[in-house]
Amino acid sequence: MLAMADALAKSETAILEANQRDVSQAEANGTSAALIDRLRLSPDRIAGMVDGLRELAALPDPVGDVVRGWTNANGVRVRQVRVPFGVVGIIYEARPNVTADAAGICLKSGNAALLRGSSSAAESNAAIVEALQAGLVDVGLPADAIQLVPGPREVTNELMAARGLVDVLIPRGGAGLIDNVVRNSQVPVIETGVGNCHLFVDAAADEQMALNIMINAKTQRPSVCNAAETLLVHADIAESFVPKALEALAARGVTVHGDSRVAAFGDVVPADEHDFAEEYLSLDIAMAIVDSLDEALQHIRRYSTGHSETIITDSQTSASRFATEVDAAAVLVNASSRFVDGGEFGFGAEIGISTQKLHARGPMGLHEMTSTKYVVTGSGQIRG
Amino acid sequence: MLAMADALAKSETAILEANQRDVSQAEANGTSAALIDRLRLSPDRIAGMVDGLRELAALPDPVGDVVRGWTNANGVRVRQVRVPFGVVGIIYEARPNVTADAAGICLKSGNAALLRGSSSAAESNAAIVEALQAGLVDVGLPADAIQLVPGPREVTNELMAARGLVDVLIPRGGAGLIDNVVRNSQVPVIETGVGNCHLFVDAAADEQMALNIMINAKTQRPSVCNAAETLLVHADIAESFVPKALEALAARGVTVHGDSRVAAFGDVVPADEHDFAEEYLSLDIAMAIVDSLDEALQHIRRYSTGHSETIITDSQTSASRFATEVDAAAVLVNASSRFVDGGEFGFGAEIGISTQKLHARGPMGLHEMTSTKYVVTGSGQIRG
Repeated sequence: MLAMADALAKSETAILEANQRDVSQAEANGTSAALIDRLRLSPDRIAGMVDGLRELAALPDPVGDVVRGWTNANGVRVRQVRVPFGVVGIIYEARPNVTADAAGICLKSGNAALLRGSSSAAESNAAIVEALQAGLVDVGLPADAIQLVPGPREVTNELMAARGLVDVLIPRGGAGLIDNVVRNSQVPVIETGVGNCHLFVDAAADEQMALNIMINAKTQRPSVCNAAETLLVHADIAESFVPKALEALAARGVTVHGDSRVAAFGDVVPADEHDFAEEYLSLDIAMAIVDSLDEALQHIRRYSTGHSETIITDSQTSASRFATEVDAAAVLVNASSRFVDGGEFGFGAEIGISTQKLHARGPMGLHEMTSTKYVVTGSGQIRG
Repeated sequence: MLAMADALAKSETAILEANQRDVSQAEANGTSAALIDRLRLSPDRIAGMVDGLRELAALPDPVGDVVRGWTNANGVRVRQVRVPFGVVGIIYEARPNVTADAAGICLKSGNAALLRGSSSAAESNAAIVEALQAGLVDVGLPADAIQLVPGPREVTNELMAARGLVDVLIPRGGAGLIDNVVRNSQVPVIETGVGNCHLFVDAAADEQMALNIMINAKTQRPSVCNAAETLLVHADIAESFVPKALEALAARGVTVHGDSRVAAFGDVVPADEHDFAEEYLSLDIAMAIVDSLDEALQHIRRYSTGHSETIITDSQTSASRFATEVDAAAVLVNASSRFVDGGEFGFGAEIGISTQKLHARGPMGLHEMTSTKYVVTGSGQIRG
């Protein structure tokens, strides 16, 4: 990991030059400024990638961890041990920093990485992988442990069909990319990231706490999957809370898409079905008033993507019902959904936040990038 | 669980009558005697199903288990808690006892069960599910928590397409059934069961131990997935061991499919490529002589289905390399592969043995039938 970090730092100039070619091409193609910003690297961003690899190096190695173990009455010893998956494919969109990040997490967890990046970042990704491979070779590891998967769109289909050759695919990007991989892959997939996260302000909520958490969850970093996208307010507290919420959101430049009951309290964009299903990833929030906890649960059941769902309440009963009945990777009581994050959870590294129920659910650190194997040791025991 | 067991016991006559109709139909269709034996129920087999449910009732409930938890410096508490998947679909072949078994394991782990059995057992399965549902209703649970999925072949395709409605599909049966589900399902799948299990007798093996384990792993119950299917013998021990192995296998009625080097030691059926890839599930075994541990590892890498692989050796080096380098759900050193089993592992119940790397690998008990959820509790914390 340290050799990879060093090699990456040494290649700064080559990477920036390659990135400039990608950016120029994107500009010539009329790509939006937002996408070009995601594509563009700088000495600072490269330093961030280098630091990320050094931090990974310092984390404990998950491979070989004994998850559990026991000795049977007949003396047979059983240990369940963490092992790498083998070959991990990552399919991702523009940001070239994902290339170093994903390669580092795969290698640290003992896996070979097949990196299928966006064609718009092809030159940047190639320069980054070339540097990482040089680092591997420096310490006597095979360069092919980290590989870029180049080529036209059909190559992604080949990757998704490579059952038995690729052990797991992890799509990272927008809902369309993830949905395509999830639906069409014969290789097992870990689904990450889409977060239509709800914040429910219960009748028994502390209003100031609700306002603080609402602003934090919506505006601290609106473009990420654990940001709040819908605010549900209990009718019993609406008259007092909704005007304050509208004011606080307006002060932070947040556009509110409100249902007709919210509209009675102020000037909002009328919300339709689509708004409640939307993961805005921007300074927009959908808002509705509900008559009960049950109605809030029903709304969440209908629109949730199963990422992170929050209740603000002082009621033990409401908190307990919400935590039990909401079906999501994370449920939060009186805390910001922005805490649902590998770094905040102390995992030290994160490949994404799984919204599926199999294998891993929630922030995925190094442990979640491994499988296990049972090692059974005896002295000649047979089954009776 | 106890109410289901009681209701099942009470319905013995109705179940046996329904089963007799299935058996008569199968006989009229010219079904093989082996398949009819798997289909046929008896008072003993029903008692076995009833006992199975009672044993499940006595096991600890996995739902609500706190897997891990911590408190962050800012006072935010995080707990990872076991929760049910939700709706589990089981697609399985003839044996009607799987109906009660799978329903019990799903319900005990908090899941609703959709049971897609074989059409040849339709009447038996309907009678069993009717009894189980009566048990549920007796204690105030919804009958629909356990449902049979009837209808023509296309219904299986609908089940595999029901992403978002069904949380996980578990196929139980032969390689063809499993392969079809794994390749065509958009619902996440847990792959179970195919076991082309190898037994490698190293140069440093105790011959008597190797013979005992070979006979146990091959003949104690040849029809199951953890039975041995291929015997690999190190060339350095072959001259002494192979004649004894051939004699012991012949004495138990096992047909040996040997390569040309094995044939030099006795009368065997010539083995081809196909034999080494075959999961016989019968009193047959493929056999080859290899020149080294590396050649054994290479053979296993080529033909293994990743279930249970065994080495017999007194060498620490060979044992350690085998345990590390063989990529399988279980690797065994000097013990019979027949121990790779939920019951033998002390899980108390087993839905199957996973040969995939995601979510669960090896015997799957109640824990493996659950997902997890993070419950995050604070007192108004926001992210800085």
